[in-house]
Parts: sequence; structure tokens; C-alpha cells
Amino acid sequence: MILTVTLNTALDVTYRVPRLLPHASHRVAAVTERPGGKGINVARVLAALGHEVTATGFTGGPVGSVVRELLARSPRVTDALVPCADGSRRTLAVVDESSGDTTQFNEPGPVITPAEWSRFLAQYGELVRGARAVALCGSLPPGVPVGAYAVLVRAARAAGVPVLLDTSGEALRRGVAARPEIIKPNAAELAELTGSRDPLPATRDARRRGAHAVVTSLGPDGLLAATAEGTWQAAPPRGLSGNPTGAGDSAVAGLLSALVEGADWPDRLTRAVALSAATVAAPTAGEFDPGVYEELRHAVRVTDGG
Amino acid sequence: MILTVTLNTALDVTYRVPRLLPHASHRVAAVTERPGGKGINVARVLAALGHEVTATGFTGGPVGSVVRELLARSPRVTDALVPCADGSRRTLAVVDESSGDTTQFNEPGPVITPAEWSRFLAQYGELVRGARAVALCGSLPPGVPVGAYAVLVRAARAAGVPVLLDTSGEALRRGVAARPEIIKPNAAELAELTGSRDPLPATRDARRRGAHAVVTSLGPDGLLAATAEGTWQAAPPRGLSGNPTGAGDSAVAGLLSALVEGADWPDRLTRAVALSAATVAAPTAGEFDPGVYEELRHAVRVTDGG
Repeated sequence: MILTVTLNTALDVTYRVPRLLPHASHRVAAVTERPGGKGINVARVLAALGHEVTATGFTGGPVGSVVRELLARSPRVTDALVPCADGSRRTLAVVDESSGDTTQFNEPGPVITPAEWSRFLAQYGELVRGARAVALCGSLPPGVPVGAYAVLVRAARAAGVPVLLDTSGEALRRGVAARPEIIKPNAAELAELTGSRDPLPATRDARRRGAHAVVTSLGPDGLLAATAEGTWQAAPPRGLSGNPTGAGDSAVAGLLSALVEGADWPDRLTRAVALSAATVAAPTAGEFDPGVYEELRHAVRVTDGG
Repeated sequence: MILTVTLNTALDVTYRVPRLLPHASHRVAAVTERPGGKGINVARVLAALGHEVTATGFTGGPVGSVVRELLARSPRVTDALVPCADGSRRTLAVVDESSGDTTQFNEPGPVITPAEWSRFLAQYGELVRGARAVALCGSLPPGVPVGAYAVLVRAARAAGVPVLLDTSGEALRRGVAARPEIIKPNAAELAELTGSRDPLPATRDARRRGAHAVVTSLGPDGLLAATAEGTWQAAPPRGLSGNPTGAGDSAVAGLLSALVEGADWPDRLTRAVALSAATVAAPTAGEFDPGVYEELRHAVRVTDGG
């Protein structure tokens, strides 16, 4: 089982409108709802790859109930979400069908009480012992201590379970110092962590801050990885147009999936890049196109990046 | 008891953002949720004026549950909403705090089955017998017959209960022919019904189509009423800036409230205009400022409009 942690789960709502006009009234042609938050997205991709996944984190209120109900429809995902009294957030993507552009609105997360955080920690401690890998993903809701990910990384390491951390800002800075197996920043998150906008030195700098491996997302150019075994860049064979929502989460799922299967770093990166590109190519945000994935798995170029 | 009918109830969600930028990502600073749909708004204003109100219509799904939970917090409003299998809609107002402007998104309503419509009709038939007045408000969700309001008007008239109809398009056209006591179109709805954009002749034309009285909303200029007792225009003493959301629903509540208290037409119009203006002046959309209402009740000018 792979454990995914989503402390700030969400209900991802998408509205399609013919054209977005500020200050006008719009009839929404179609509404879709999906369980969301980065760790939930990772869980769904891992499950699609055939892995058994347990999803934990917090959900609460009527929005949280919908998240759980939708999550129950995903095969191979076990719901171990911890209830919180405050309500889970929605995210809203308004898709302008005339341009294909998306306007995003993110509600604030629920306030987590100290008692709820303690309950989560106790449950996480038990779950991690049965896990082959752990993904810690996304932002911290209000009330969760800023050092939360450092605590969760240490607990996984104490249990001998590899842990991937995908977050930003101070939560990332503190989490890295607890020495996770992998972090997966994008260019902006890496620059915030290291102060450098030059990907290669910044990726290496991030490693020196504690992570065993740093896999930096370069957007359409693929991934750059600095690891104990070497430094690589992995790139898709061609640019793919589409919706990049969820591409980073698919890369996380690819890295963890290959890790638990014992694959080496070039294979891990190949899988991550192929899944990420197949997610951009899929018509529905956050899902990957299996045909594109199979095609790209044999076409990703991995080069020595050092 | 006053009965309000909201066939297409909604959860009215408001997002406040510092500035709305199409195709950008926004952190929502504050989220508010209220039970909505025109008849629900009317019910809340009537209750605030001290009337006992029963609210019926349809609600369903997780959004419907939130609507009922929020409605239960309104004193003097009895929930007689009929469950439907499909989910109630949300409306979303995104308020740009830099300009004060609002961008509105309206989800489609639930699909009502013939069996659900039959259950509603049976319940409405019972409720209307205990009502002193009925308000039929807003759009018809998919599946409800387009002649629905004509059926509901006739059932109220058969029970000897005065009925106010506030809707638009074909639902209004058919409803008017069933001879409701009052209709309350705005200028656009009246033009669609009559083909005329000239308020006085159009208001009189609408009366000839069947309504005993037609009260046309002129926006900031107040109300124009054509009735069996005469024709009047009622205007606030001064222009009020603010949010017009819900002003029409407050006017409906004012008309019905005064009607059941036995007030004459000039008094009904005075109350409707004062409540409507006090709603524009209130900081929260759909609520009225009691101080402004008390002040304007003594300052609305009613003139012979014929």
C-alpha cells in the first residue's frame, strides 16, 4: 500500500461557460465535481496504475462529505480521511470555452484544531507502518503547525518508509530539513527555497538542505533530478498542448510507483515525465491519457544532467 | 401563514476577491453561503417583518441539504421543501473588492421527475388551504411543465387565496393567463411579455392579459402599478447606491406583507419601495437595512400614474 496525505483536501468544481465576461451574469453550461487536493490526485493516478492506495488527511462539513462520496467511487483507494469540524474547501475552475483559458478560485481551507491534529498524527503513525511509500502533498490548512511535514517525514523515516514531499514555502523549507527521500518542487517553489532561479545549481542546493533526491519540474521541458546516484534531465519527445492541471501530481505518482517497484532513477523519471505529459494531453483536468502514456514511456529522453 | 414557492431553490455562494483577473488564479478571501432562489429570499424578508412563512419548492442532493440546514436558522420560516433526487444548484457571485462589481455564475437546476412534480402538487394543494397569500417566484427547473405556474395560480384561486407571481418568459406568459392577483415584472420581463418597452402602456397591457394588478419594477425609479383601483407610481425620495441583488424579492415581500395586513395600494407600494431601497442600501446582498426601511416608509412619494 502507498499512503497519500492531503491535509487540505478539496472539492474541485469546474464550470464551463461559453465566454467569461467580468461583471456579467453567466449560465453555467456544465458543472463537474471531483475529489481534489494534490495528494488525492496522486492517489487516483497511483490507483489507475494498479497500486493499492490509502488516502488520509482531513475532510469536514458538507463539502467534505461530497469529497468522500466521490472518492468511494475510485477503485483501489481506501478512504482513511480524518474528520474535522470545520468544512473542507472548494476550488473552482471556470473554463472559458471560447479561448480554453481557465480562471481559478481557491477557497480557504478549514481551521484544524489541536485535538484534530493529534488524532491525525496517531492515525498517520499507524498507517505509515503498513505503507511501502508515503506522499505528503499540498498546502497546510489553517491550524496545522507549519512544521507539520517535518514531523510526518521523521515518522516515516523512523518506520523505514520512503517519503516524497510536494509542498511550497515555509512548509517545504521545514520539511526538507527532516531529510525526505524525494522533494518535487517546480521552478517557482525551488527559487523560493534556494533563492536561485538557475535550475541546476538550485536543484543541487536543495539537496544540500536535506532531501536525498530533488526532482525539479521544468514544465513542458520535463524533469531535472539531483540524486545520490547522479543528476539527470528527462524530457518528453515533443511538446504537448493541453491543460497542465494535475501534471505535477501525476509526476509524483510516477516517481512513487516506480520507486516501490524497485526501478532505478532513469526509469522513475521516464515514468514521471510520460505520466505528466499524458495528463496535459488528457481532455479532463487531472486525468491522464493511457494511450499517450504508453507511447511516451518508450520515447522520453533521459540525459546526464550534471 | 404566507406560503412561498421556490421550485428552483439554490445555495447562493459569494466569493470576495481583491480583484477579478480573467485566466488568473485567485485566493478567495471570504466565502459566504445563504439559502437562495427568489421565493426563499421573499420568505426571509417576510419573516424579518414578523410574518409566519412556509417555504416550499424542491431541494435535493448535498447542496439541497445545506440549503435546508441554513434555512432552519431563519426564525418564523417553516421548511416544507419537497425532496428531489437530482441535486439543487448553486449560484456564485464573485465580488471584485477593487471595483465593487459582481460577476455571477448560475448552475443549471436539478431535473424534476413527473413523480416528484406530482408529490409537490399534492403538498401544495394542502399548504395553500392554510395560507393567507402565496408567492410563486423564480425560474422553473428542468422537468417541471412550462405551464406549472398557471396550475399553481388556479389552485390558489380555487382556495380563495391571493397569489403573486414573479417569474419571466413563457412561465410568466402562461401564468398570467391564469389570472393571478399580482405580477411583478421588471422592465425587461414586461417587454418580453408585451412587446412594448414603454412602461405605462406595457403595464396596462400586461393587466389585460389576465393579472388583476401589475406592479412593474423601474429599478432605482421605484414601482409602477396598474390595478383595478387605479394606477400609481411610487418612488424613493433619493437614489441609493449599493447592491441591487434581492431588491425585487424585497419588493414582493413588501407587497404581500401589506396585502395580508389589509393595506390599500398606495400603502402596499410604499412598503415595497422602502424595503427594496433598504435592500440596495444593506451591506449584505439580499438583506435589508432596518434603519433605512423605517426612514423611507415615511418618505416614499406615491403619485397618480395614470
